[in-house]
Amino acid sequence: MSDENDEMVVTPYEVRGKLDYDRLIQMFGTQRIDKKLKEKLFKVAGERHFMLERDLFFSHRDLDWILEEHVKGNPFTIYTGRGPSGDTHIGHLVPWIFTKWLQDRVKTRLYFQMTNDEKYFFNSNLSLDDVKRYTHENTLDLLALGFQPENTYIIQDIEHIDMLYEIAIEVARKVTFSTVKATFGFDNSTNIGSLWHPAIQAVPAFLHSWIYGKNTPCLIPCAIDQDPFWRVTRDIAEKLGYYKPATIQCMFVPGLKEGGKMSASDEMSVIYTTDTPKMAKRKVMAAFTGGRATVEEQRRLGANPDICSVFKWYKFIFVPDDAKLAEIERTCKSGELLCGPCKQFLAPLMVDFLEKHQAAREEVKDRVDEFSAARLRDEIRR
Amino acid sequence: MSDENDEMVVTPYEVRGKLDYDRLIQMFGTQRIDKKLKEKLFKVAGERHFMLERDLFFSHRDLDWILEEHVKGNPFTIYTGRGPSGDTHIGHLVPWIFTKWLQDRVKTRLYFQMTNDEKYFFNSNLSLDDVKRYTHENTLDLLALGFQPENTYIIQDIEHIDMLYEIAIEVARKVTFSTVKATFGFDNSTNIGSLWHPAIQAVPAFLHSWIYGKNTPCLIPCAIDQDPFWRVTRDIAEKLGYYKPATIQCMFVPGLKEGGKMSASDEMSVIYTTDTPKMAKRKVMAAFTGGRATVEEQRRLGANPDICSVFKWYKFIFVPDDAKLAEIERTCKSGELLCGPCKQFLAPLMVDFLEKHQAAREEVKDRVDEFSAARLRDEIRR
Repeated sequence: MSDENDEMVVTPYEVRGKLDYDRLIQMFGTQRIDKKLKEKLFKVAGERHFMLERDLFFSHRDLDWILEEHVKGNPFTIYTGRGPSGDTHIGHLVPWIFTKWLQDRVKTRLYFQMTNDEKYFFNSNLSLDDVKRYTHENTLDLLALGFQPENTYIIQDIEHIDMLYEIAIEVARKVTFSTVKATFGFDNSTNIGSLWHPAIQAVPAFLHSWIYGKNTPCLIPCAIDQDPFWRVTRDIAEKLGYYKPATIQCMFVPGLKEGGKMSASDEMSVIYTTDTPKMAKRKVMAAFTGGRATVEEQRRLGANPDICSVFKWYKFIFVPDDAKLAEIERTCKSGELLCGPCKQFLAPLMVDFLEKHQAAREEVKDRVDEFSAARLRDEIRR
Repeated sequence: MSDENDEMVVTPYEVRGKLDYDRLIQMFGTQRIDKKLKEKLFKVAGERHFMLERDLFFSHRDLDWILEEHVKGNPFTIYTGRGPSGDTHIGHLVPWIFTKWLQDRVKTRLYFQMTNDEKYFFNSNLSLDDVKRYTHENTLDLLALGFQPENTYIIQDIEHIDMLYEIAIEVARKVTFSTVKATFGFDNSTNIGSLWHPAIQAVPAFLHSWIYGKNTPCLIPCAIDQDPFWRVTRDIAEKLGYYKPATIQCMFVPGLKEGGKMSASDEMSVIYTTDTPKMAKRKVMAAFTGGRATVEEQRRLGANPDICSVFKWYKFIFVPDDAKLAEIERTCKSGELLCGPCKQFLAPLMVDFLEKHQAAREEVKDRVDEFSAARLRDEIRR
């Protein structure tokens, strides 16, 4: 790769180049989650979670404040979402798994936004039917993780626009072209739907407060690339009488190839939730690792887990157990564990996960409506 | 007034300066309605109408085409609307009166759009409650003209967004910032709601086709300042599989002061539909005319009806009878009819109109829902 291609670009619409998360924090103006803040969250949750422990979630805005409010008896809601432009892969599930843990621990409501309008605006190859179909398919993947309907409200932008539009127009009046140009890199050739969409994406941060007529803090767990949306949302929140939403932001789950995030642009780097066990296994066995050129060399010098995609998958998804992870790391570095056997260890974990996920996905197929934000229509004050 | 102030500016957001309708036709790229086309419309309508006869409606796009389609058995729907940012004045009623005549004559459906979101976007002094209240008040004025619910569907953008959004996002994906910048004079400081709104204003031109799944021509009667919306709408129509909407466009009804259009910025130039008879009479008696400095001079030289606001009101609203209008014009020019008595003639016509209008307005107060486009929700294919 040339230096030019290595240049880091992280926007909600594009992630490429060599990722430098310290620089991202600086560029976006967020805060790093330090040890003290981690402990604060674990205390509120009454349990630790390896994704935060291991810094997959590494950045935040006002997380300390929202936890303090919670402790003071001012609880928060959670908001996250998905742009349904394609099939779900395992990288998408990771922040949802953490979100579910957080929801379960603090027992709060989750608003999950499917931004099917956004994906329609930004991808001229997608039809309305396409984004609706992906909305449905992606919803199955979300629900397969075990969310419960009582506290889970899935918003579909196009289908639920009647519940979003009033807040969206309040937001939109406060946001200029200059702002979205500077924040998202839009230009004169950007279509007016794309220009408008940040107003819609802001809405779920305020929806609970608006429906129930009581200003309620909102915490947004999401990948760091979505931060520009929250900058805009936070800038106008107080002008509309709402709290600024807080965020807890994660890194990108790496693909099975070298560097970068898991991305649909390289099929072999991505495990889709609908991949067959055979396909998943083949992808794992072809994964990029930190191994040496020869077995002999690796036995002698050890391998490098820091650049290994397989090790990252252990770390961020498949090996929550710290002792087990440390053992893998030690034997990798020492040369005891070769890449072949190491992949042979990941493969069944992956297959097992997929089989359970696909079964759960099948089970929720006819239950999507139970989770729909449409249930809130009756509660909306007109 | 300085020359600078006289410079004509006509956009959907601002009308000022000395109006030159020939130049407007040129600037906007519309067509003048010629004698032949007038006769064609009168033939289709089976009746003549003085507002077209006297060139209040003077400009069009594809009016000839849509009349031909009608004759061929491919009937059209009608679409017009109102931006509810204030009280209705008589100038607003004029195109609605013509619209109703056209609707009655060709027996077709009218979609009437209340762009309450637009007015919220463009006027930071208006609250959501304000634009909703004006929507209701303006609707009463519309309905007081005698529209019948069977064929009249009032769309309220905010309240009926669920019926508009899908078409709007299809439109929005096809329209760039460059386009709305060039068409509406938007700039970097324009809010993203205002940038988005042209997509919403396009929708009623396609709504009938979309709901019933059959491409149906649409004719838009409106004031010429709205033409930029239809340029954008027409540009993308065929890409979405719809006919380009045709338009029939009117001049601005002049105010009771010198020049310009009736505008809320000068209270005395405007007769509101809710003005008391006393107030209306006072405004009429203070109107700008084409009279001479002295009675003696006027008796001798006659007055000038061409610049007289009172005469314009006769011409465009209160004296449909051609012989009567000619008599007024003749006696004005000859010096027989002085401005005082002339205003005394207009005043009771105005008062009579207002009293009838206000009574009709009172009668429809509880019937607004009968005209709501919400009735179409059940017909929308999901």
